[in-house]
Amino acid sequence: MRNETNEENKARVLWFTGLSGAGKTTIAKEVERQLKAMGVNVAWLDGDVMREYFPCTGFSKEERNAHIIKAGFVAKMLSDHGVTVVASFISPYEETRAKVREMCARYTEFYVSTPLTECEKRDVKGLYAKVRSGQIKQFTGVDDPYETPKNPELEINTMGLSIEQSAAQVMDYLSQDGGI
Amino acid sequence: MRNETNEENKARVLWFTGLSGAGKTTIAKEVERQLKAMGVNVAWLDGDVMREYFPCTGFSKEERNAHIIKAGFVAKMLSDHGVTVVASFISPYEETRAKVREMCARYTEFYVSTPLTECEKRDVKGLYAKVRSGQIKQFTGVDDPYETPKNPELEINTMGLSIEQSAAQVMDYLSQDGGI
Repeated sequence: MRNETNEENKARVLWFTGLSGAGKTTIAKEVERQLKAMGVNVAWLDGDVMREYFPCTGFSKEERNAHIIKAGFVAKMLSDHGVTVVASFISPYEETRAKVREMCARYTEFYVSTPLTECEKRDVKGLYAKVRSGQIKQFTGVDDPYETPKNPELEINTMGLSIEQSAAQVMDYLSQDGGI
Repeated sequence: MRNETNEENKARVLWFTGLSGAGKTTIAKEVERQLKAMGVNVAWLDGDVMREYFPCTGFSKEERNAHIIKAGFVAKMLSDHGVTVVASFISPYEETRAKVREMCARYTEFYVSTPLTECEKRDVKGLYAKVRSGQIKQFTGVDDPYETPKNPELEINTMGLSIEQSAAQVMDYLSQDGGI
């Protein structure tokens, strides 16, 4: 693929953060779908995509942060070369999100702020049940911290919203912020 | 950046392997420069680019391989989205290079086969001197293995070749192999 001369690189990193079960990935996937339908060159990035190649990642603050920085590097490389990135990571620490923001020229943060009680009620992956029964430890929001984003570009509280409505908030934000 | 409709993704991963001091990075940089001049969307990838975000990489076979797989993942993500990658890594193990080849749709391997004696004579970074004085251990080609590539797309023996001549071999190969 050629760069078109004088075309400004507007590729963003759309970073979805929030608790497990908040709806990050579901919303982000719908946003990815809509962007692709618009003809945007989009890359998807999440823990599942990275796990195969970045194994042995632990759950200490240092290990979580190191993993997010690596994801941030992949996002930076892609967006620096004109590829829009849709990334879905719990990414619980403000300091690390701030570092990824610094690394990526057009980082745009979406805080999916579904409350813990609701995430636990939905428990799509059955993880909260395992946490409560003691099978899983160091689970973000329960016995491991989630630092609320200080300056997200948009907060999405999915309570009472459909996936389409949540994704529409993202798309509206993007079009009001100069497009994609 | 938009994908042009019906445009086939021809983005390659141009992977330069060889001993330290073989001339990999010098040739690869010249290739990158020429591709950019042609308007190709090119990303540069090497140990220095990755080091800041992928620290603590050791020199055991497992650690070296894990590092190369991560580089391969970045290369795969970029090339899957239309970005040509120029990568320069010693990448001493055949098994790992084969894995990167498998990961990347259009992996093209350039084996820069400058002999050890010549690399040591040039010793651009002064590393071989440190190896011989015992300051550096586990150095590829000296006390750590370099497995000769079995099926590189092109072998470049830089003996008696200028940088321009070496890079021209790469560019000739690419244009004979369907272009970039």
